[in-house]
Amino acid sequence: MAKEKQFVTEITPQGEDFSRWYIDVIKKAELMDYSPVRGCIVFRPEGFEIWEHMKDELDRRFKETGHRNAYFPMFIPESFFQKEKDHIEGFNPELPWVTEAGGEKLEERLAIRPTSETIIGHMYSKWIQSYRDLPVLINQWANVVRWEKRTLPFLRTTEFLWQEGHTAHETETEARAETNQMLDIYRDFSENFLAIPVIMGQKTPSERFAGAVDTYSIEAMMKDGRAVQAGTSHYLGNKFAVAFDIKYLDRENTQQFVHTTSWGVSTRLLGALIMVHGDDRGLALPPKVAPTQVIMIPIGPPKMREQVVGRVDELYAELKKAGIRVKVDDRSDVSPGWKFNEYEMRGVPIRLELGPRDMENGQVVLVSRISGEKRVVLQSDLTEEITRMLEEIHVDMFERAKQFRIDHSHSVETLDEMKSLMEEKRGFVLAGWCGSEACEKQVKEETGATSRNIPFEPAEKKTKCLVCEEKAEHTVVFARAY
Amino acid sequence: MAKEKQFVTEITPQGEDFSRWYIDVIKKAELMDYSPVRGCIVFRPEGFEIWEHMKDELDRRFKETGHRNAYFPMFIPESFFQKEKDHIEGFNPELPWVTEAGGEKLEERLAIRPTSETIIGHMYSKWIQSYRDLPVLINQWANVVRWEKRTLPFLRTTEFLWQEGHTAHETETEARAETNQMLDIYRDFSENFLAIPVIMGQKTPSERFAGAVDTYSIEAMMKDGRAVQAGTSHYLGNKFAVAFDIKYLDRENTQQFVHTTSWGVSTRLLGALIMVHGDDRGLALPPKVAPTQVIMIPIGPPKMREQVVGRVDELYAELKKAGIRVKVDDRSDVSPGWKFNEYEMRGVPIRLELGPRDMENGQVVLVSRISGEKRVVLQSDLTEEITRMLEEIHVDMFERAKQFRIDHSHSVETLDEMKSLMEEKRGFVLAGWCGSEACEKQVKEETGATSRNIPFEPAEKKTKCLVCEEKAEHTVVFARAY
Repeated sequence: MAKEKQFVTEITPQGEDFSRWYIDVIKKAELMDYSPVRGCIVFRPEGFEIWEHMKDELDRRFKETGHRNAYFPMFIPESFFQKEKDHIEGFNPELPWVTEAGGEKLEERLAIRPTSETIIGHMYSKWIQSYRDLPVLINQWANVVRWEKRTLPFLRTTEFLWQEGHTAHETETEARAETNQMLDIYRDFSENFLAIPVIMGQKTPSERFAGAVDTYSIEAMMKDGRAVQAGTSHYLGNKFAVAFDIKYLDRENTQQFVHTTSWGVSTRLLGALIMVHGDDRGLALPPKVAPTQVIMIPIGPPKMREQVVGRVDELYAELKKAGIRVKVDDRSDVSPGWKFNEYEMRGVPIRLELGPRDMENGQVVLVSRISGEKRVVLQSDLTEEITRMLEEIHVDMFERAKQFRIDHSHSVETLDEMKSLMEEKRGFVLAGWCGSEACEKQVKEETGATSRNIPFEPAEKKTKCLVCEEKAEHTVVFARAY
Repeated sequence: MAKEKQFVTEITPQGEDFSRWYIDVIKKAELMDYSPVRGCIVFRPEGFEIWEHMKDELDRRFKETGHRNAYFPMFIPESFFQKEKDHIEGFNPELPWVTEAGGEKLEERLAIRPTSETIIGHMYSKWIQSYRDLPVLINQWANVVRWEKRTLPFLRTTEFLWQEGHTAHETETEARAETNQMLDIYRDFSENFLAIPVIMGQKTPSERFAGAVDTYSIEAMMKDGRAVQAGTSHYLGNKFAVAFDIKYLDRENTQQFVHTTSWGVSTRLLGALIMVHGDDRGLALPPKVAPTQVIMIPIGPPKMREQVVGRVDELYAELKKAGIRVKVDDRSDVSPGWKFNEYEMRGVPIRLELGPRDMENGQVVLVSRISGEKRVVLQSDLTEEITRMLEEIHVDMFERAKQFRIDHSHSVETLDEMKSLMEEKRGFVLAGWCGSEACEKQVKEETGATSRNIPFEPAEKKTKCLVCEEKAEHTVVFARAY
């Protein structure tokens, strides 16, 4: 078996080829590797740890709002998919099938879950009898599979990791409140944990989850101007309740169908994170998810080495104790300059340099990965200074991403305007839409952009459909999307 | 679809039918439910949370010893299994196969991982080139599938959850040290977190992991005297390195094969936990994994209700703040006695009762689930008293389980002795073994017991094989096993 070179040696500039840049960065920073299975990637420790930080934070927020985790089988009998018509239409083309097991052909084929509404609906019908059993608030962390034609690491892989929340409620009002609550948790998490500004809104009917009554999303802008749907929350009405007979005896002793929701985010968030924050020097990781938040690099002539490294180790212990994710690179066979480039490429938020002069003055130098700003701070204040700087870098990254989105957001009145705009410029386009599928489809065919969502708070309200020029029912964000 | 009754109404006594007892308890305590997929169960929130506590603690220990998590695809190309002969022989009969996906027949069938040595070996061969890349210390939390003929909730399910550590090292010495280290982490975790005493030892060749050079295990005794293998750690030598060409350039610039290990524990630990600690009143959960550690029950006449519940809520807030997993059951439509039974059945370690008299005296009553001991303690000392009592309950549970094992451990010289012993008594049997597969097989055929392991520290050293009466090479623990 041939050995491959572990690193690509250079990163393609974003402006030259954004797709190449993306692959260069995630390979070189060792976030992932291709696997021998079509469309499946390996999440290497540096990439997986980012997901772990996301997972821990989301899990905490889910539990805070009363949800509990459970685990359902990944195999779904074929007959289950037949029960909800829209659901099977949407997912059937992407299902992998287990047809043989334990040396025998199976009587009924088993799909591997692309999502779990069906099997969870089946179980809920057993668990829910009375209004006293409601609400059911369950989340699952799991792997799912969708046999995609075109794949892209993190953003669209055959197997991926995600969480899927599945809740059941007495009333539509409660279920809609849950749908909104979870969408808002996703927004808050994106902005305040990942430093990714997002647009909250409702999906158009053609972009709805297969089987949903209403789908809501948060949409983020990548540095090539394309959109990533970073999370979705669905109000499923009674559709799965009817398909799986999930009924309860209400407070008036009458049988009713429950109202269900589902909501999820996945490892595609890793792709969004990289494409929102990265630059030509490589990865740039927001402090709250960075596996290493501070890299400490001792500097100076060999005769001072032992003394400097000794002091670095003391400061390391102090930061570590304060819960900061910190590492020391005290290798003597590579230069400080090489290390600077290496950790910039890996996206470490803060570089700490300590040399003989700093020793004398009781100082260290802190450098921000995102702005390049240098701060000389007292060693005696180090933990507070680092904590503050990490918080400031988070804000800085969020503001930069937001400004980028503002700079690449456009507004049009007509399809012609949109076409010429999209030839020259990247980004999101705000436009009016009459609500007809035909007009939406025409936009896609002529510009390559799809409707991302109908924002809750559009920058302006449009009055005319960009295609047919009839009255606009909605103001829509269009964009090319991953 | 027919609605099922949610609860079975009674628990079969252990002495009457241990298997029925087990199923009754796990259903009634809502730890799991059967699924529509053969041999697969649903981990309900009460059961899954126990697994989450186990997972968090193990993950912390793995990271403390330098391991990092990663994630590899669950699909394994058929050709991969052909590369290590023993491995395919062991796992082939249990594999499920994906043969169709995305509407097409696949060119090569994909197995769903029963374990990941093959695909991880393939990736390691790409990542490892030099001794500088070693050791590689990676763990994965994942679902795996083994198409078992006979299944039993938690203990043997078609799909289950586990962690699998996979490491690669320069030398045999290092790899063996890793194998031992992880086995000892499992032992320590079992004893000090799950309150389950275990026997550490080496598996006989016939019970080795398919593809291992040496397999080590920890073995626990259930309350019916049967054994559960609660964790395994394997030294794989060069076998997977040769099969997947995992080579490195050593310090003398020579190509060498790496030495690998793998180690794992799974959701079968849930089954062991229940069968080690449970009794005729139901589940008994060790404090460190119990989803609820303290259940608070207000007591007294309706006129005092508001006042008592108010005080309970204050104490609840205090305990919660101290990080204790506590719940209040202040329902007025069920009696305190009903609640006492309910939470005993659910295995909650401590029941806290507070009534009007306790209010007057500034006291509460604490009752241990495992011993029934009652303590009257001052409300002002509550957090410390509860913390201490949880620790004592842990020790109490461990000591009871250990005493049970001592009471059900036997020692024999001959197969006849063992046969008559196993007809009357349950438990583990220590005996000498010459090392031949034939003798081991005869024990199994005539007693139903298998060799569990060759303990590192047997209670006594046997000199003669129980079957052939030749010189004993090893002293072995035999038992019927799950």
